[in-house]
Amino acid sequence: MIIVMQSKAAKAQVDEVVGRIKDLGLKPHVSHGEFRTIIGAIGDESLLRPESFAGMAGVEKVMPIMKSYKLASRDFNAADTVLEVGPVRIGGDCLAVVAGPCSVESERQLRDVARATRDAGAALLRGGAFKPRTSPYSFQGLGEEGLRLLRDIGGEFGMPTVTEVLDPRDLDLVIRYADILQVGARNMQNFRLLADLGRIDKPILLKRGPAATIDELLMSAEYILSEGNHRVLLCERGVCGFEKSTRYTLDLSAVPNLQAATHLPVGVDPSHATGRRDLVTPMALAAVAAGAHAVMIEVHPDPERALSDGPQQLTPKAFQHLMAELAPIAQVVGRKLQTQVKPNT
Amino acid sequence: MIIVMQSKAAKAQVDEVVGRIKDLGLKPHVSHGEFRTIIGAIGDESLLRPESFAGMAGVEKVMPIMKSYKLASRDFNAADTVLEVGPVRIGGDCLAVVAGPCSVESERQLRDVARATRDAGAALLRGGAFKPRTSPYSFQGLGEEGLRLLRDIGGEFGMPTVTEVLDPRDLDLVIRYADILQVGARNMQNFRLLADLGRIDKPILLKRGPAATIDELLMSAEYILSEGNHRVLLCERGVCGFEKSTRYTLDLSAVPNLQAATHLPVGVDPSHATGRRDLVTPMALAAVAAGAHAVMIEVHPDPERALSDGPQQLTPKAFQHLMAELAPIAQVVGRKLQTQVKPNT
Amino acid sequence: MIIVMQSKAAKAQVDEVVGRIKDLGLKPHVSHGEFRTIIGAIGDESLLRPESFAGMAGVEKVMPIMKSYKLASRDFNAADTVLEVGPVRIGGDCLAVVAGPCSVESERQLRDVARATRDAGAALLRGGAFKPRTSPYSFQGLGEEGLRLLRDIGGEFGMPTVTEVLDPRDLDLVIRYADILQVGARNMQNFRLLADLGRIDKPILLKRGPAATIDELLMSAEYILSEGNHRVLLCERGVCGFEKSTRYTLDLSAVPNLQAATHLPVGVDPSHATGRRDLVTPMALAAVAAGAHAVMIEVHPDPERALSDGPQQLTPKAFQHLMAELAPIAQVVGRKLQTQVKPNT
Amino acid sequence: MIIVMQSKAAKAQVDEVVGRIKDLGLKPHVSHGEFRTIIGAIGDESLLRPESFAGMAGVEKVMPIMKSYKLASRDFNAADTVLEVGPVRIGGDCLAVVAGPCSVESERQLRDVARATRDAGAALLRGGAFKPRTSPYSFQGLGEEGLRLLRDIGGEFGMPTVTEVLDPRDLDLVIRYADILQVGARNMQNFRLLADLGRIDKPILLKRGPAATIDELLMSAEYILSEGNHRVLLCERGVCGFEKSTRYTLDLSAVPNLQAATHLPVGVDPSHATGRRDLVTPMALAAVAAGAHAVMIEVHPDPERALSDGPQQLTPKAFQHLMAELAPIAQVVGRKLQTQVKPNT
Repeated sequence: MIIVMQSKAAKAQVDEVVGRIKDLGLKPHVSHGEFRTIIGAIGDESLLRPESFAGMAGVEKVMPIMKSYKLASRDFNAADTVLEVGPVRIGGDCLAVVAGPCSVESERQLRDVARATRDAGAALLRGGAFKPRTSPYSFQGLGEEGLRLLRDIGGEFGMPTVTEVLDPRDLDLVIRYADILQVGARNMQNFRLLADLGRIDKPILLKRGPAATIDELLMSAEYILSEGNHRVLLCERGVCGFEKSTRYTLDLSAVPNLQAATHLPVGVDPSHATGRRDLVTPMALAAVAAGAHAVMIEVHPDPERALSDGPQQLTPKAFQHLMAELAPIAQVVGRKLQTQVKPNT
Repeated sequence: MIIVMQSKAAKAQVDEVVGRIKDLGLKPHVSHGEFRTIIGAIGDESLLRPESFAGMAGVEKVMPIMKSYKLASRDFNAADTVLEVGPVRIGGDCLAVVAGPCSVESERQLRDVARATRDAGAALLRGGAFKPRTSPYSFQGLGEEGLRLLRDIGGEFGMPTVTEVLDPRDLDLVIRYADILQVGARNMQNFRLLADLGRIDKPILLKRGPAATIDELLMSAEYILSEGNHRVLLCERGVCGFEKSTRYTLDLSAVPNLQAATHLPVGVDPSHATGRRDLVTPMALAAVAAGAHAVMIEVHPDPERALSDGPQQLTPKAFQHLMAELAPIAQVVGRKLQTQVKPNT
Repeated sequence: MIIVMQSKAAKAQVDEVVGRIKDLGLKPHVSHGEFRTIIGAIGDESLLRPESFAGMAGVEKVMPIMKSYKLASRDFNAADTVLEVGPVRIGGDCLAVVAGPCSVESERQLRDVARATRDAGAALLRGGAFKPRTSPYSFQGLGEEGLRLLRDIGGEFGMPTVTEVLDPRDLDLVIRYADILQVGARNMQNFRLLADLGRIDKPILLKRGPAATIDELLMSAEYILSEGNHRVLLCERGVCGFEKSTRYTLDLSAVPNLQAATHLPVGVDPSHATGRRDLVTPMALAAVAAGAHAVMIEVHPDPERALSDGPQQLTPKAFQHLMAELAPIAQVVGRKLQTQVKPNT
Repeated sequence: MIIVMQSKAAKAQVDEVVGRIKDLGLKPHVSHGEFRTIIGAIGDESLLRPESFAGMAGVEKVMPIMKSYKLASRDFNAADTVLEVGPVRIGGDCLAVVAGPCSVESERQLRDVARATRDAGAALLRGGAFKPRTSPYSFQGLGEEGLRLLRDIGGEFGMPTVTEVLDPRDLDLVIRYADILQVGARNMQNFRLLADLGRIDKPILLKRGPAATIDELLMSAEYILSEGNHRVLLCERGVCGFEKSTRYTLDLSAVPNLQAATHLPVGVDPSHATGRRDLVTPMALAAVAAGAHAVMIEVHPDPERALSDGPQQLTPKAFQHLMAELAPIAQVVGRKLQTQVKPNT
């Protein structure tokens, strides 16, 4: 950690900082420049809290050298983590497409989607049973009935399933049914839930919050990893921005940016990010071209009558077209598309 | 609701929209303009879901006329809601200052702060017992011991208390100790928690999420109100922005903006918003000048040694100076400053 | 235009709005709903200024039906505009890669880049002669000498050239040398400059400002089109956001979003958007997958010694690798890659 | 400057960095930590360009110690700069209110506003003659006729005048008429214009761009200062954000934040920031409470018929009410309100 003192900082203030660094077991290194005194702290930086120095008298700024996450970092683990979920691999050079309706609405709806998306090349089946809705007056999901349908129909088509855990009190229930547990963007900093998920033995799909930086997302992953669960799939799904013709601003540069910083696989959800059906396909293709390990696409047999997020759900036919372009792009960038049916080469 | 059709929309597409409006029990009104066909839906708009129309073929855009929240709106309740918490009133022409440390750390720390802030004019005592920390390796709060200290010392100085509920599983515990339950910014869209808080009989301090619009904040308040708890204090605490020399961008225009839209009282937390001690005092004064009903200030007897958020906590002396300017500004804008000791005139 | 009156609006206020609509030559249509009175204005909406109604007593909100740009819209011109610059086509199903150094620094530097990028498949040569630098103490470009080098070396390799006009007083000079004139992001709302460029006979590359919405970008294009110059290439180059590990947040969804709204071609500049060499290649590929008509890449023979923007410039070798992946992706999404040498199949 | 090497950086890469620091005339200081090698550059940091190091092989990040602006910094000039414009002082403990219409529309309009605002306590008269309008089809200002009216009526009421220079080609004209020249938010990084303004002998009001950081605003001020003009008034006028019920997000914390970093006076424009008349008064009061040295308020005798920005302009009566609260708040925070008539106590 580097501590820059104000130009008018007194010697006593410098001594105070030096003293605290020593107290914490590190070695201070003081450098008197022409304009500023700079103090380096040599040793295990994780013993220092930057904010405790930032508040000291005479300190201008504190610059940590190390990232505050460890287990999630490339420094800790240089090789890509590859998640295995049933026959599907996510990470490294493996790319999986996750498809399904925003909300599970009925057995027929889900089966139609599962069949169509699997045939088109999707590897995993998604569907919401507990829905976080902005309005208390909106459809809130089918609950356990939705989970059961998801498990049964996923099994029927050989597709491992992904669904969201909205509340820690639902955790035991959701674990019984789903293969991958999703943490929604609004829960990305629900630290108690993250710690709970760190103690279970299923992969976690962790979505980036709309106001979360890359570092904050990785700190949230660290909560899960630090409790022992090392199977985390990160997911970019749009950040808040000033443009209002799309729901969020999809930050696709987060894909290679995260991949440089972490060994964990990185997915993209273009459906929630854009909120517009006409933008989902180009953004899904772009995500693959950018190197994503997973792409999540909302598909509904009749989007105009969907109980949630209709405007962003693709029809099965549109999904099929999407996959016809996605597969060759995956090949160009060296990704093996995971499918349930036959190799896509 | 107004539905604007695309310029090239077919008659069959217009008929489809008209048919759905009728199915939902409203009266459609079609207007063929020079460039666009426009369809109005006359009747109870809350029966329509804008998104279900937005996804229909031939629709260009859907413009709701009504807000999606009701109980929180000025239309529903024109008069200001005034919360009463023990002897303290918040809302209307009453302004309360909430002070206390970021985290409750020890009996002595909390008592020093309570005494100093009450003497300077604070009406309520705040302090965190369960802390949402970005890093799993940071201090997470004293838990129940912190709650007990808060209740006891609040009682000692006649200050009602405010503390955060981080997880629905802590709710029963926190209710037993605190007078006002706070929902942190990261939980603003934890809809299950909001619904739970709607069923209790204590005021709720609801913080705006860093990526939440004014409407989304009011929809979150609606979750609480719709379950029966009408005592909600909204709180602006900074939104995400591109400026990095402050932690967040404090959106003070949210104060009059919210007050125009809702009857609920509106507070401001300049400590978390700025993250910088030197900005807390001017922003607290600005909040009062803008018409806030509550101001939350973090105060610590020795901020340099605080276990969390040191750089933004004021010393008791700085808090005293703040109050010496805050009180006359409150008077200028017609607010009665609530105090525990003697009227501030 | 739809005008929604406040729930408590008086009849006289409604009459005032109705009267003004009539005064402006449109036909008012008043609809008294259960909760609100709504007034439609039927006729040529461009005669109304929404803001003049928004400020009237009793008005809650004003909702325009039409976009405020015309010539730039798909409604005005359904077919894609294809720009022709020498032998190169941009727009429709044609994709051109623009490559070159951030700043023209020397004859040798520019020739090395031109040869290497043309051989790798770039169609146009870019290079800055007048540089907008945040700091007055930074390198400001070679000026006319840079323009001359650009023209000569572009000619040598058969590459039409692109360079930025920073100030209207340079316009006559730049026109003499360059084939496409670029308006930088910081000048996107320099309306006088836009109008000047609307009166010349060369294509304009118009970059999106970092705080500009899609609509604002199209309004700026409208300034150029409305003066008679119909050859405009729009360019997404990152918007301001809260993430600080990249320079801006590249909004790739702007590509299909713009293409739905306008007939003008849309390009992407991943170099300035990310500011990081390691992100340029994945973002360039993603841009093509998203359907971009042009991609601008900064290339420098020795980026570590570049006089500006070193960290984001690719080496010629890295550019060659980029093109090896870009070409087949262009083919998948149906774009014909424009090259100077031989077809890229 | 501190350069942090990647954990796997080779010795040759460290040597390369060390060599370049020496070449540039500074003294390198290498520190081998447990996880990273860190290189400090001791000497005049302004000789180094951070970006040239950021692009070097093996470098993880570059952390400048010094700000990139000098003349604008508190380090350079610890005492507040106070601008004198005729009898009016801006800066230090002096606060001036600038009032007037968005656009100068007619002699009568301007005279009505000037009289009313001067009587209510405004010190300076503002009015636009060249208007930057988003749409080419909107009113663009009266041009020189507007400048003449502004000068004449300002003179009549003893109010120095403020108006915007939109284009460097108008500079000679505007100088002849106005007392303070305004650089609009969209021109904040029009560096050529800034340099031109640095060579004239009139104070400059420099507005913050909607996507500009505090540092970027100060770098733009530096352009003016570095050419010799030391009279610059900075002005916060809202930054881009995700909230759409206000035009921009007014960042009031910029006031004390800037005042900590620079000696230049800092003003606030709540009219353009909010775009809503009902928010202008609370935000103007808040700006003064936050310590602003100037507040700019748009006033129009009949805002509903204004040719630009009607919804945000106050009536003369509303302005009078604003001043009745503003004056005592100025007193509380130790600001002397500059007036043309009589002391406001």
